[in-house]
Amino acid sequence: MNDTRFSSAVHLLILVSEAESPMSSTQMAESIGANPSWVRKLATSLREAGIITSRPGRAGFKLAVPAGELTLLDVYRAACGQQTVRVFEAHRNPSDACIVGRHIRPVVEALFADVDEAATRALREKTLADCIRLLREDVDRTGDKYAREGGAR
Amino acid sequence: MNDTRFSSAVHLLILVSEAESPMSSTQMAESIGANPSWVRKLATSLREAGIITSRPGRAGFKLAVPAGELTLLDVYRAACGQQTVRVFEAHRNPSDACIVGRHIRPVVEALFADVDEAATRALREKTLADCIRLLREDVDRTGDKYAREGGAR
Repeated sequence: MNDTRFSSAVHLLILVSEAESPMSSTQMAESIGANPSWVRKLATSLREAGIITSRPGRAGFKLAVPAGELTLLDVYRAACGQQTVRVFEAHRNPSDACIVGRHIRPVVEALFADVDEAATRALREKTLADCIRLLREDVDRTGDKYAREGGAR
Repeated sequence: MNDTRFSSAVHLLILVSEAESPMSSTQMAESIGANPSWVRKLATSLREAGIITSRPGRAGFKLAVPAGELTLLDVYRAACGQQTVRVFEAHRNPSDACIVGRHIRPVVEALFADVDEAATRALREKTLADCIRLLREDVDRTGDKYAREGGAR
């Protein structure tokens, strides 16, 4: 699952959490730099996972979970639709005519499970609040004005 | 780098280490279930990294490093041509017109660096000898005959 859904979901959630006024999917798509319909589908995945909610009678979304309690593993699972990170792909056609080919699958699966678990654990240890803190630190460091745009204060 | 080079390289190295008589690239490609020219390139990458050596005046390869000292990180680096595992890809076009878009890159990079480091560490902790042990265990468990083929004893 080496696409940009996860990274875009983190971006989207920071917008939902930090924007001064709620942003439409089209505005969020502009900020993310992606296709609006793709971003709408991503937002739907996050909404269906209970991470964001629509604002009844109003545009935009709000977080359904405090940023400090929302782990990046939750975000990953909602955005990418799988429970654990899959880092590598196994080769699919080892030959049954060779003893190594017949027994390589469990070897590779055990090895990959360890790597996947390490990556998954790293996501579980971080929250959206950590990302927002990092963003604010970068804004401060560069002297950018956090309140300049209507989009995000 | 979510392709099957790494998993195929582990398979190839087990063949090099365990085969009763050295196997040609074509034989190894059959066992791996991949294109022979692709397997030859993979073998070249492993040879150039000093993991396997040609057998002077004879066909096939042999390990240039004891299996117990060859970490899977070494294998990954040689097979995939990068120093650390890259688990996720960042979205490429965040907008500079939005403060979140301007500052999301270091946030995502810091986050991804932690995940990459966790996955990389997991590979560093395993050796080819661990893989061979797992393979033998699976052979024993299933009652397969490890010496049946000429390919691997």
